[in-house]
Amino acid sequence: MTAPLHEAHPAGRGRRLPDTQQGMRRRNLARVMHTVSAEGPLSRAAVASHIGLTRAAVSTLVDELIRSGLLEELGPERPGRVGRPGSALAVSGRGPAGIGAEIGVDHLAVCAVDLRGAVRARAVRNGTNRGREPAAVIGELTRLVRRVVAEAEQEGLWPAGLAVAVPGLVARDARTVVRAPNLDWHDTDLGALLPDELPLTVDNEANFGGLAELWLGDGTPRDFLHVSAEIGIGGAVVVDGRLLRGTRGFAGELGHVPVHPDGPECPCGGHGCLEQYAGEEAVLRAAGLEPGEDRVGLLAERAAQGDEDVRGALRDAGTALGIALTGAVNLLDPETVVLGGALAGLAPWLLPSLERELARRTAGPACAVSVSRLGSEGPLLGAAHAVVRAVLDDPAAVAERAQDSARAATHR
Amino acid sequence: MTAPLHEAHPAGRGRRLPDTQQGMRRRNLARVMHTVSAEGPLSRAAVASHIGLTRAAVSTLVDELIRSGLLEELGPERPGRVGRPGSALAVSGRGPAGIGAEIGVDHLAVCAVDLRGAVRARAVRNGTNRGREPAAVIGELTRLVRRVVAEAEQEGLWPAGLAVAVPGLVARDARTVVRAPNLDWHDTDLGALLPDELPLTVDNEANFGGLAELWLGDGTPRDFLHVSAEIGIGGAVVVDGRLLRGTRGFAGELGHVPVHPDGPECPCGGHGCLEQYAGEEAVLRAAGLEPGEDRVGLLAERAAQGDEDVRGALRDAGTALGIALTGAVNLLDPETVVLGGALAGLAPWLLPSLERELARRTAGPACAVSVSRLGSEGPLLGAAHAVVRAVLDDPAAVAERAQDSARAATHR
Repeated sequence: MTAPLHEAHPAGRGRRLPDTQQGMRRRNLARVMHTVSAEGPLSRAAVASHIGLTRAAVSTLVDELIRSGLLEELGPERPGRVGRPGSALAVSGRGPAGIGAEIGVDHLAVCAVDLRGAVRARAVRNGTNRGREPAAVIGELTRLVRRVVAEAEQEGLWPAGLAVAVPGLVARDARTVVRAPNLDWHDTDLGALLPDELPLTVDNEANFGGLAELWLGDGTPRDFLHVSAEIGIGGAVVVDGRLLRGTRGFAGELGHVPVHPDGPECPCGGHGCLEQYAGEEAVLRAAGLEPGEDRVGLLAERAAQGDEDVRGALRDAGTALGIALTGAVNLLDPETVVLGGALAGLAPWLLPSLERELARRTAGPACAVSVSRLGSEGPLLGAAHAVVRAVLDDPAAVAERAQDSARAATHR
Repeated sequence: MTAPLHEAHPAGRGRRLPDTQQGMRRRNLARVMHTVSAEGPLSRAAVASHIGLTRAAVSTLVDELIRSGLLEELGPERPGRVGRPGSALAVSGRGPAGIGAEIGVDHLAVCAVDLRGAVRARAVRNGTNRGREPAAVIGELTRLVRRVVAEAEQEGLWPAGLAVAVPGLVARDARTVVRAPNLDWHDTDLGALLPDELPLTVDNEANFGGLAELWLGDGTPRDFLHVSAEIGIGGAVVVDGRLLRGTRGFAGELGHVPVHPDGPECPCGGHGCLEQYAGEEAVLRAAGLEPGEDRVGLLAERAAQGDEDVRGALRDAGTALGIALTGAVNLLDPETVVLGGALAGLAPWLLPSLERELARRTAGPACAVSVSRLGSEGPLLGAAHAVVRAVLDDPAAVAERAQDSARAATHR
């Protein structure tokens, strides 16, 4: 890997820059990057008009971003336009990349995403992680990360940070897995187990899934509730384009909202939690199926074949989801609910009862429910994009490193 | 009333100022006001060190705020301090005031609060508003507002805006009461009924109650869930010091979270909503009491006397609150839950079962529950303080008006 990086929180934590001339310059660099990223390719004049600064001010900022390797010029724009011909600007397809990793209960995955959002390298290892020692799992993950980074470097990219999605609660230090019941991990500091060459962000898989939906979803609004499932049921609350994290970093625990308060006991200590009705194991049990390798695939296949036991189990799960979501919608008033992760693949059989329940329990128009097109890819992509977004949010912080990296490359 | 004011949203809506020199100056004026308001009296040097600007820059800002009548000098500081003697700065006790109003089901109330947070005038009218025409109620409220404004003006204050708390859902236009079932009002535009002399903000009483707790509560954290009751049960979600409003402005509807999904029908269309177990009418019914004038007072009196029917009804209401709050705490991960409004007065009999339910349904330490010391005063104070906070948040916007007002006063 490249130069060691020492920033505490590279990804997605919304650090507020100070209100000084220097802070203003840094925020304006970020506005240029975001504008070109969202709207590009764009001329300098178009960038200036988008962000409401003078052409001269924008040119200074753009030059700095080009020198740092974060923007590039695509060559002269096609003729026929009014005014002096300008060179269109685009976000660099070389330069910094976000490294995303996912620790699933049944797999490990790593990918590298460039500033343009393209996946440039990828590695997956299937096999259960349930009950394995964290050090062994992280050792294996580290090898995958190194392989992906090496592949990305061959394409002229350098890793700006590593973000890891885990199926459990993560402390606000963005390093420590407080509780991951399906891995049987408790108070595990991933920062101590991972190599310290890259700035690290660890977060709950449902959070990264929700962020992926925000950043990559098709017309996803800025206020929504993302519901996903792997083994457990996770939620992510996005308010005005920001993830709601909670005091301890535990917000969005939809799986343990009481649905029937006198229902079966849940390992969390509660009774009748949503996971007891709509969690993967509960649905498999209700459908009379054995837990195997590809559980969601099995449920979807049987439901598609018309298996009434499976369809009934999914219908009941949809009803339970609808009850829990009624409470969540009342509290949060989101614009939509998005079904993601494994739930996306089961949506055809969950949605009718889920939507009926929401509608009959809500005065006025019920909250819209949509299905994520990212599905189970969400957490991994969300992790990689969290690093990319951190670069766009504060390009000045990586510019110096980018220049170091460029100098190192020319001397290779 | 004084000069007509034309700003759309004076209070608490967190308008973002543009990132220009002019925007920076306005934000720095706000930082000076907030610093003196929170920490004052302070010297110019102390303000400079608090906000990290030079003494010269702060002096320019302070002079502008003094000219506008928003800050005042208290005279030379007491001797014995190091350095040149300076004059301590304080927020002005004359100048702009926030006018707060509350439309309760059984009363109307209005107060004026100065920039220092002191209530300087107040008027109340008891009597039911249930089923009355909005125009009649607002006519009466307007007379109370004029009386309070006249009293405030006699003390050298001038009204910077009017904020009205209502027992119902308010649209994001901050004018329209979409639904107030206990008044029987629907889609009522209060902006059209109130005089347009003052900038207006209408909001749900539970929202203003939550904001009052944030601004005036004793050690209230910046992340909490505020639960209150008058006739209905309201909630307010505060995240990182900001009220969560939701897409339509309806967030915090805790009263209609399903507690027992197969329970009794609720006027909202749902079944087994929290209000069916812990709403005032449900508790009175369970206790075998008739709804009268001072319902909460009656419940508290009987419970204090040891009436087992009343105590049992409150115990069951606490259990239902605990179930609904478990879901809310799982979703939001607040630092505390605060019981406010009428619930504060009933806390001794609600809390034991409420806290037991929360604890037994939560893995790890349960969320702390505290009792508001503002109680039923919360919404009215929150409304008045919302106007005051808007002045602190953007003093430049009111400075010109303040100067006009001062000029008008000297010519009177």
